[in-house]
Amino acid sequence: MTAYQTLETRFRRLGTVGEAMAMLQWDGATLMPAGAAPARAEQTSALKLISHEILTQPDTGDLLDAAAAQNELDAWQRANVREMRRRWLHATAVPPDLIEALTKACSASEMVWRTARPANDFAAVRPHLEKVLGLVRGVAAAKAARLGKSLYDALLDEYEPGGSAAEIDLLFDDLAAMLPGLIDGAIARQKGRGAPLPLQGPFPVEAQRAVGVELMKRLGFDFEHGRLDVSLHPFCGGTPDDVRITTRYDERNFTRALMGVLHETGHALYERGLPEAWRRQPVGEARGMAVHESQSLLVEMQACRSREFLEFAAPLLRQAFGGRGPAWEPENLYRIYTQVERSFIRVDADEVTYPAHVILRYRLEKALVAGDLAIADLPDAWNQGMRELIGVAPPSNREGCLQDIHWYDGAWGYFPTYTLGAMTAAQLFAAAKRAEPAIPGAIAKGDFAPLFAWLRANVHGKGSLLSSSELMRHATGTTLDARIYEDHLRRRYLEA
Amino acid sequence: MTAYQTLETRFRRLGTVGEAMAMLQWDGATLMPAGAAPARAEQTSALKLISHEILTQPDTGDLLDAAAAQNELDAWQRANVREMRRRWLHATAVPPDLIEALTKACSASEMVWRTARPANDFAAVRPHLEKVLGLVRGVAAAKAARLGKSLYDALLDEYEPGGSAAEIDLLFDDLAAMLPGLIDGAIARQKGRGAPLPLQGPFPVEAQRAVGVELMKRLGFDFEHGRLDVSLHPFCGGTPDDVRITTRYDERNFTRALMGVLHETGHALYERGLPEAWRRQPVGEARGMAVHESQSLLVEMQACRSREFLEFAAPLLRQAFGGRGPAWEPENLYRIYTQVERSFIRVDADEVTYPAHVILRYRLEKALVAGDLAIADLPDAWNQGMRELIGVAPPSNREGCLQDIHWYDGAWGYFPTYTLGAMTAAQLFAAAKRAEPAIPGAIAKGDFAPLFAWLRANVHGKGSLLSSSELMRHATGTTLDARIYEDHLRRRYLEA
Repeated sequence: MTAYQTLETRFRRLGTVGEAMAMLQWDGATLMPAGAAPARAEQTSALKLISHEILTQPDTGDLLDAAAAQNELDAWQRANVREMRRRWLHATAVPPDLIEALTKACSASEMVWRTARPANDFAAVRPHLEKVLGLVRGVAAAKAARLGKSLYDALLDEYEPGGSAAEIDLLFDDLAAMLPGLIDGAIARQKGRGAPLPLQGPFPVEAQRAVGVELMKRLGFDFEHGRLDVSLHPFCGGTPDDVRITTRYDERNFTRALMGVLHETGHALYERGLPEAWRRQPVGEARGMAVHESQSLLVEMQACRSREFLEFAAPLLRQAFGGRGPAWEPENLYRIYTQVERSFIRVDADEVTYPAHVILRYRLEKALVAGDLAIADLPDAWNQGMRELIGVAPPSNREGCLQDIHWYDGAWGYFPTYTLGAMTAAQLFAAAKRAEPAIPGAIAKGDFAPLFAWLRANVHGKGSLLSSSELMRHATGTTLDARIYEDHLRRRYLEA
Repeated sequence: MTAYQTLETRFRRLGTVGEAMAMLQWDGATLMPAGAAPARAEQTSALKLISHEILTQPDTGDLLDAAAAQNELDAWQRANVREMRRRWLHATAVPPDLIEALTKACSASEMVWRTARPANDFAAVRPHLEKVLGLVRGVAAAKAARLGKSLYDALLDEYEPGGSAAEIDLLFDDLAAMLPGLIDGAIARQKGRGAPLPLQGPFPVEAQRAVGVELMKRLGFDFEHGRLDVSLHPFCGGTPDDVRITTRYDERNFTRALMGVLHETGHALYERGLPEAWRRQPVGEARGMAVHESQSLLVEMQACRSREFLEFAAPLLRQAFGGRGPAWEPENLYRIYTQVERSFIRVDADEVTYPAHVILRYRLEKALVAGDLAIADLPDAWNQGMRELIGVAPPSNREGCLQDIHWYDGAWGYFPTYTLGAMTAAQLFAAAKRAEPAIPGAIAKGDFAPLFAWLRANVHGKGSLLSSSELMRHATGTTLDARIYEDHLRRRYLEA
């Protein structure tokens, strides 16, 4: 066996164990009885340790060097070696005892956060968060030294490979300058035309599920290779051959669960569309969190909050829920789905205020990791940032810096991928429509085939062959450009 | 670390990976979309290979010897070393290429069987079955040499550790001599009193599920550590901290699904009652298939097909299904649940004819493994045996030697555990009632606590500490004795 073949065999095993872990995680979030949690944690941790051992065998570095020197490799195999090396660098950069200390600190911090958040008690979780940040900075320093990056970029690289704060600053600063005006304008405009008519419920879970399944099928979700279930926090899990999405139903309001299903279907179709020939190899996996989020937001925000889609969906929804009257007209549904509001909670935010929530968190975590902001000063900095970006400050930390699990659970460098994903979605959708002008008309008939043919060719089928920037250049002609996203927001919320 | 501690650490990892596999298998049989089967097979096979590598590390034999010489070990630790050695002997006895050839042959044979059975085409599957048997005999020879056992006993040892054909012959010959007369007598007696009154359906799935859950709770099933779901073939899966049983509903007839739920609950309570302190160690696992089956049959056949239980259950069932009239009286339910019939299909057989089906298969597989019977002669030998033991011969191989998956899928040496389990159940139930005379009265009130307190102390909590024979001697005063089971059958079907 050549060095490359040896690596492919090892990484196939690694990928297969990863699939097993993904299924256990899905089960843990959907069906598992509560008492099984400790045993499940043992199972997951054993498989993680086995994966770590596979990845960090002493000869991996030499094999990677030897494989990189093999001239006969195809382009995808060379990209595979590059992605293998990235994994290996991340896995070996940090001393095991530091990883273990961080895992324990995150677990303790997350547990305290679960009660501190509803109790609005930042003081209780503050020492835990300080400890987590200290260890995260240690991890960042170790990875920064190994990867030749700054502290923040070393953390970001885990979620957005090759991403940098310098690029994000340019994109986000541009957007941040425009957002307050856009929010003002959108709110003034919608005030002028009055509130959308409310939809009268209740909306039985079974009917919500049925219409969700119907739309998933329209989008191309293959139930021979996936499922729709229920979980407390909706997500897309499983594996490319068994993609499992979840939602959470509210019988008083179907609009959120429905758009959530469409969002997760976007993630699912990306996973399902990854190149089968590269299955269980690093090059065959999704490109990163920003591209992943772009696929969910492309479906949810670009395609399905459009007038075209709601024209198509309105009669389906009316029939599913026995709806009557003008509230069920496409234009009213469109207004419901494009309502803008200054609010405190990111996960409840609309398309226009959401990026402001993300920019706030990105700027704060960057300052915290750099050592320019102390955890003690986080609540004030949060509220100050909210006033500047969204124009309101939360009445308490519960609706402020306690709201998201990310930092308390060790996910630093993740937040910007939400808005990078939204920008990527806008740019890809614009390029898709340029290449296939029939796309909007097809969507108005519930036909997503032209859109997904383009996405499969330009995004899904590429796996991790290209970097995110290269992917965007190939697919859209330019690297990520904030103006395309800004144009989309302006058109939808100020003009159309 | 001592040799023993090293082994405990390795076997804990082995046990934990085994738990992960059990969850994946459960999912595969219940929820998994069909298209995910190839990927699931890859996941399972990767985890199996990892398990095999953990178990067969080159120093395992030396570690086992060194651990066996450690004088400071507790009794359970010594038993743990004994069980570790048994696993290791089985894993290392057979050359890997023979295992692989058998796995492939079984997979091919099972696939052909799936169509040959409904098509009644024994000739189509015969060469595959011959190949499987040839390889099974090779495996048996390799294991026999390593374990110092006969061919058949070496196969049996995987399902019934320490079991032997010599002991089974004694038990089964005794039973076989009595069965034809018992079947005649039971059928004559029930003819004399006429058929039981039919229960009028339909019986909605939701009502069947609700009454199943109610009875599971009565038995002590803990839904914080387990689930009830649906699968094509009912089974008990999962892990001791997350025991998952399944059933299959038929809206025209609830009696079978209900008794199936009680059967699987017996398996589940055994798994759940295994000693927590020995979790993920070989000594902490179930004693073998015969003891496992005894726990399901003790619940289903001994406890729940009794007049006492049906007294308690009748009003519950009447209420659940809105039943009215004499058909819902306990005595009629008892007659339904103790109906005897000469039939061809083992899985549909009643308590009296079931052991005859098993003895037939046991005798045939023993002769096939010994080389005393050729696959070509199997159909005739089958039909001949049916006539002798049950008094009817099947009209075709579909209802004859094609009916069970076991041989076609490589499970040789498994069949006798069904009837060993039935005998064990009768003997344990008799001993439990001797020790706790309040048990039948409690069951008549739906109170299973006294029964399970005794089972936990005498069976569940022992794990694999004792051999099956020792377990029976400790719990009942004697090793397995066919007469106790025969007395039970005689009392229930000829006298009571």
